[in-house]
Formats: sequence, C-alpha cells, structure tokens
Amino acid sequence: MSLSCLSSTRQMFRNSGSTFTPSKLLGMVSNYSSRPHNHRLDLSNDSSTRERNQTVISYYNQSAIDSAAAKPSVRLTPATIMYTGRSTDSSHALKSAQYLQKELPVRIAHRIAGFRNLPFIVGCNPAVLSVHEMYIRAFHILNDFPPIQDMKDEAEFSLLIENLLDDFKYVVTQLAEGFKACKKHIKVSCQNDDMNEPRDFYSQDKRSFPHYFVTTQQEDLARQFLDRTLTSRLGIRMLATHHLALSDNKPNHVGIINLTMRIKDVVEKWADFVTRLAQDKYGKAPRIKLSGHINATFPYIQLPLDYIFPEILKNAVRATIETHSDQNENTMPPIQITIANNDIDFIVRISDRGGGISHHLMTKIMQYNFSTADDSTEVGMDNHLFSNMMELSNSTTSGPMHGYGFGLPTSRAYAEYLGGGLSIQSLQGIGTDVYLRLKHIDSKSESFRI
Amino acid sequence: MSLSCLSSTRQMFRNSGSTFTPSKLLGMVSNYSSRPHNHRLDLSNDSSTRERNQTVISYYNQSAIDSAAAKPSVRLTPATIMYTGRSTDSSHALKSAQYLQKELPVRIAHRIAGFRNLPFIVGCNPAVLSVHEMYIRAFHILNDFPPIQDMKDEAEFSLLIENLLDDFKYVVTQLAEGFKACKKHIKVSCQNDDMNEPRDFYSQDKRSFPHYFVTTQQEDLARQFLDRTLTSRLGIRMLATHHLALSDNKPNHVGIINLTMRIKDVVEKWADFVTRLAQDKYGKAPRIKLSGHINATFPYIQLPLDYIFPEILKNAVRATIETHSDQNENTMPPIQITIANNDIDFIVRISDRGGGISHHLMTKIMQYNFSTADDSTEVGMDNHLFSNMMELSNSTTSGPMHGYGFGLPTSRAYAEYLGGGLSIQSLQGIGTDVYLRLKHIDSKSESFRI
Repeated sequence: MSLSCLSSTRQMFRNSGSTFTPSKLLGMVSNYSSRPHNHRLDLSNDSSTRERNQTVISYYNQSAIDSAAAKPSVRLTPATIMYTGRSTDSSHALKSAQYLQKELPVRIAHRIAGFRNLPFIVGCNPAVLSVHEMYIRAFHILNDFPPIQDMKDEAEFSLLIENLLDDFKYVVTQLAEGFKACKKHIKVSCQNDDMNEPRDFYSQDKRSFPHYFVTTQQEDLARQFLDRTLTSRLGIRMLATHHLALSDNKPNHVGIINLTMRIKDVVEKWADFVTRLAQDKYGKAPRIKLSGHINATFPYIQLPLDYIFPEILKNAVRATIETHSDQNENTMPPIQITIANNDIDFIVRISDRGGGISHHLMTKIMQYNFSTADDSTEVGMDNHLFSNMMELSNSTTSGPMHGYGFGLPTSRAYAEYLGGGLSIQSLQGIGTDVYLRLKHIDSKSESFRI
Repeated sequence: MSLSCLSSTRQMFRNSGSTFTPSKLLGMVSNYSSRPHNHRLDLSNDSSTRERNQTVISYYNQSAIDSAAAKPSVRLTPATIMYTGRSTDSSHALKSAQYLQKELPVRIAHRIAGFRNLPFIVGCNPAVLSVHEMYIRAFHILNDFPPIQDMKDEAEFSLLIENLLDDFKYVVTQLAEGFKACKKHIKVSCQNDDMNEPRDFYSQDKRSFPHYFVTTQQEDLARQFLDRTLTSRLGIRMLATHHLALSDNKPNHVGIINLTMRIKDVVEKWADFVTRLAQDKYGKAPRIKLSGHINATFPYIQLPLDYIFPEILKNAVRATIETHSDQNENTMPPIQITIANNDIDFIVRISDRGGGISHHLMTKIMQYNFSTADDSTEVGMDNHLFSNMMELSNSTTSGPMHGYGFGLPTSRAYAEYLGGGLSIQSLQGIGTDVYLRLKHIDSKSESFRI
C-alpha cells in the first residue's frame, strides 16, 4: 500500500466508527489479504455464503501478519530512549523512526494473534472485531510504508503515527463495550452431568462452582488478553508519542520524558480535576491533602499517570461523598495522599474514609468489566458525561465517574507493565488505601522496558 | 503413669530447663517407650553405643503416640465454647475437662509427628530436641491420666493443665533459639554439578539460585513446621486457659472470651507498654494516636492479641525513633492506629513514619529467624532485658525490642489461624503500614476453629 491512499484509508475507518460489520469490512480487509485458496472454499453459489466465506478467509490468510507475529518485540528501557534522544543533529529522530517502522508492525502483529486466539464468540463481537480490524489496517499501513531514509520520509512517517494515535484513542472504551456485551452472552457450559447450569463467564465464586478450572481458564483468557492488549497499547503509545515529542523543544524534556517531573504536580493536577468533576456532579467534594516527599522531582513519563491517577482518585472521592452524604466539604473526612520516594521506586498512597470495599466485592474489583455501577446510565455508551469531560482534559482517560469497569484492572496492568504494582487494602467500615508503586526510570536496579 | 508421680515429673523437667541432652533424657523418656526390639539392635558391648541406640529406639517406638497421631483433631468454634460455657451447675466444666482429656493428647501427638519429620540435623538440635521431649512427656502425662468422672478428677486435671501451661511457656523462645542455631549450620547441597556451592538453608534469593526448588522445599519444611507448631500451641493454650478460666466468675467473661472486649483498650494497653519500654531504652517514644471505630466493643479472645500487638508496635516505635533520632517526643511523627469494625471482621492498621522497610528486606521480614538485629547482643539468650520486662507484663510475649526474629512470622501465623491475616505495605523512604485483620467470633459468616 502506498502513502497516497493513507489519508483515504484513514478517512474510511474514521467514518466507520464502531458500526463496522464483517461484511462491510470485507472489501477493505481483503485488500490486505492473500487469498490463494479462496475459490476452493467457495463451494456455494449463494452470494451471502460466499461473502461469509471470503470474510473468514480474509482473517485466516494473512501471511505478512503471520511472519511479523513470529518475530520478537524489541523493547527499550526508558533510560535508552532518554539518552538516545539527545543528539544535536536530527539523526536521533531518523533512528527513532527507523526503529518504530521495524518495531510497530511486530507489536501489532502480536496483538492480532491475540484477537485470533479469543473465544470465537468474543472475537465476533462487533466492538471487539472493530478493534481487531483497526489493528489489521494499522499493520498494513505501517508495513507498506517505504523504508525511511531521510527526514522527509521521517516527517511523513510521523504524520502517519500521529493519525494512528488519534484513531486508536478509543480502543479502551471499545474493548470495554465489547467485553461487557460478551459478559452477558457467554456462559461456560459444564462437562459434568450434575452441573447443567450454565455459568457466568466472569464468575469468581469458586466455592459455589466446583468446576472452577473451566471458569478460571475462561477468566484467565479474557484477563490476559486485556492485560496484554492494553499494556501493549500503552507501550506503543509511549514509543509513538516519544518519537513525535522528540521534535518539540519543550524545556526539561527528552521526548516523552519529563526530566524533572514533580510527582506532587501530577497528583495535584488530577486531584483538582476530580474535585471539579465531583463538585459538578454532587455539588461538593472532599478535601485532598498531600504529605510525604511532596518536593520529590525525578525523570519520569507522565502519560500512564494521566490514566491511573484520575481512576484511583475518582473512586476515593465518590466513596467519600456517598458515605458522608450528609456532610459538607469541610466536615467530610479528607482524602490523604502520601508520596514516598526512594532510590528504587516511588509510591503514592491514596487513603480515603469512604467506608471501604465490602468483603464480597474484594475479589471482583480487579476484574475487567466489573462495576459497582453496572446498571447506572452513566456506564452506557450513550452518556459519557464524565468521560467526555475527562477527554477534554486528557485523551488517555475515558472512564466514567463510577470507575470500576476498566479503571482499576487497567491501572494495575499499567503499573505492573511499568515495573511496579497497584495494591488495595480495605478497612471495611472505615475506608480504603490504594498503593501505587512505580520503578524509577533512572534507577540503578532493573527498570521496566517499553 | 499415675497422678502421684506428676509433681515429681514436673519438678524434673522444670529443673532441667533447656540443658537436656538426649542421653540425660534417656531414662525419663524410656519410661514411656515400648522397646520390644531393643536387645536386637544393641549389637555392641560399648556402653555409649548402647545408650545411643536406646535413645534412638526410644524415639522410634512410641505406639501410644503413633495411635493418637492417627486420630483427627476435634476443633471447636469460638461460638461453641462461648455458648457451652454457660451452664449454671458445674457440668460445663466437667464436659470441658473430658473434651480436653481426649483432645490434647491427639494434638500433642500430631506435633510430635511434626518433630519426627524435621530434617535430622534440625531434630538433633538441643533446643529443638528439648521441646520435642517436652511434648513427649506432656503426651504421656495427659494420656496416663485416669478418666475424669467427677469434679474431684476435674480439679486434679485442671492443676495438671495449669502446670503444663507453665512448663510450655518458653517454647517459642526455645524454638527460636533452636532454629537460629540450625540456620548457621545447615546448608542445602546441590545435586547439579555446576552448583557445588552449599547454600544457606533460609536463602530466598531465588534469582541467584537456579535450583530453588531444593531451597524452597527446605524453607517450606521449616516454615510449615513452625507455623503448625506455634499455631497448635496457641490453640492448645486457648483451650486450656479457657477451661481454667471457666471456674472464674469474671464479669462479662465466659472462660477466655471477653464478651465486651473494647479493642481500643487492648491496643492502648500495648501502646502504653511499648511506650514505657522505648522510654526506658531510648529515653523517648513517639506519640501513638488512635482513630476510627475506637468505641467498638464485641466478644473476642484477648490472648493472641497480647502476642501480636506488642510485636507490631515494637517494630513501629523502634523504626520511628531510629529514623528520627534527632527529634524529641513532640516533633517525632506519631504512630497512627486506625480501628475498623464491621459485621465480618475487624481491622487494626498501624502506620508509622519510620522510613519503611528496604526493598531487599521485604521478602525476608516474614521469615522465621530473620532479624534486622541479628548480631545484636539483645537477641542472644543471655540478655533478655526486654523479653523479661515483657514477661512481667504478659507471659505470652517473649521477643526482644528488635523484633523481626519470630515476632512477625508468628503474628502472621496466629492471624491466619484466627481466620484473618497480617499484611505489610511499605512506603520506602516514608514508613510502614501493617494491617491486622481478624474474623469476629460471633460473625454470621464462617469463623475460625480453635
């Protein structure tokens, strides 16, 4: 595929949104597919059957993707991207583009392999399929781009990257929608005769379900797919954003890396944001107090924090307001945020007095698509009041105020991807403590890889 | 064995203390052993060899213990002991004694089986062997006690129980000493040719030791033995103390159960104790502040809390003082204790600003015999300044001020035995949060069993 058709392709899948169906997509996807055995499988004269078969074959035969998926990903340390982004000429930008051109198709091919391995009924979900197809298209767009040899190529490639970043902006929301729909329809059928009841795909109550290995396999499959897809997306977005930011001359920055990030500023930015959100929704918000190493400054990448902090803070603020609904801003117990910094990592503890998380929910809060606000109109795709507000402020976050759906499991997956973790301690009856730990990117000990 | 020789037996092992050796014990232990094949194994005329063989055989042939060890333990719920302890006549005391007479030999036999399964070199350690032999003697004393038929029998049995409780008071210290000695001497030898280096028995650094399954087996063995021995001891002590306390008419108590325990009072008792301890040792102590459900009152058993709270509080106070050594009592950051109570459990969070636990120590702090004060004179058996102070105040606690040796792993084992848990979150550079969770004994949901 040549560059000339890039903008039209982009326009095509811009307009299509999430209403794509396999048959509508057929023409587009088949452009990229080798279909040597198509005629052999097309045994019927019925045109709809033929179309269906062609659709299936278009997913089945994708030799370029297969060969890219067989290659290993080349992951970089943040230290590498920090120090290689410092050349005075433009060689670093050229090298970075060349690296991305090799690397991105491999990563995207790995994700496509992930979509192929989903249970068929999940893979057929329109929202999931739509994301799958976005990956296929992105693969071909990147794979067909001619070798980058000079800064003119680099500029065109950068434009392509920028457009792809924009197109993939709503992937988390689309996957959340897709898996939410699957949750309703997919049941685990039991092999055992005395257990004919179909079971919820996501059920975690293992004590009431002796055949839990079946459930567990299904659960693990969905969780692992989402963990990998979302963290891979984060990695790709960090690499792509870094490349684009290399050409900015933002002070104290090397690409995406803020050399003197003040963690307090990032926390306060999101504390203010969530406070305004709560004031808008509830007419009040608890105070948010910071303590600990509030002056700590170190190099870090803010992008993942811009997803994680609003998610955690929304939960804390909502729990506090709902538990102390009879109190005003000054009498409501404040949310206490403590920052701890050391040579190896930094930790942000968010403590609320919002009553804690009920015992029976503790195993569920880290499940994708589990939400305490499952039937709320807010969660539906039609009413994205808060997500829209959030997107106005920052495009990486798209969760509604009632947060559990994807916010916590995605935040944990991100934290683990970044060499850290997210853990929750609930004091039922009092409140909840959330611990976000993240490895320093300039630590002497092993850091993460992007 | 008849009751008539009880006091003399007791006197014997009172005097012997921890200086028992297998050969010294031979005469006593062999009283309880069937030795039908003794003459067949005694092939040598050398008297020391004969004595050694007799010693081994005395451990080997113990048919009464074997048959008791084959029986299952009958564990009670706290609710059961709370409600069966309410009869107006003495029938509850008689029933309780009869239950104990059946149950204690079985539990002790299970523990003896545990000693037999230790690695030989651990079992031979004088301190470990001494405890092993105490269990054997206690088994026979209890097993030989005639059936309890009336309150006169019950009174004699209660006296026996009281004496045994007293004799077993230092078991935790003795085991700590024994396993500390073993830690120095036992190495895990590797089967693999390229790994001829012997490895530390307790080593947890699995990354530097590819054959970690060997280490893990050994670690697991020691840990499981100590977890089971110490929690079994706790269970036995709770049952025995409960039986003895049944005859007291302490208001708001049924035996060992305080029907209106105020968790704040228990926490404050130990906060005051540890404060005095610190003032004595360091000349100062941080303030300890309580918040949350400080008025919560519910039925509970205080005995295990009297072990756990001083252990956790000692660590928090010591860390605070050592991290803020230049500050006085008023400027030092206080230790914040939060109590949370709900239908299912209660949680006590102890938060300090003592700098946190270094990353490289986090995997070790829950290991038995790991101590940050390993070479301190305080830890040795000769200098029990703090443990003696503690024993004056409460006999279940015997750890020195520098706590990690047995305090944390034992506290966690106790908490898990009581249907709860102990977890630690460290904010390295700032402080440590310890979460103690314990199931209510009158909860509608499943409680623990003693």
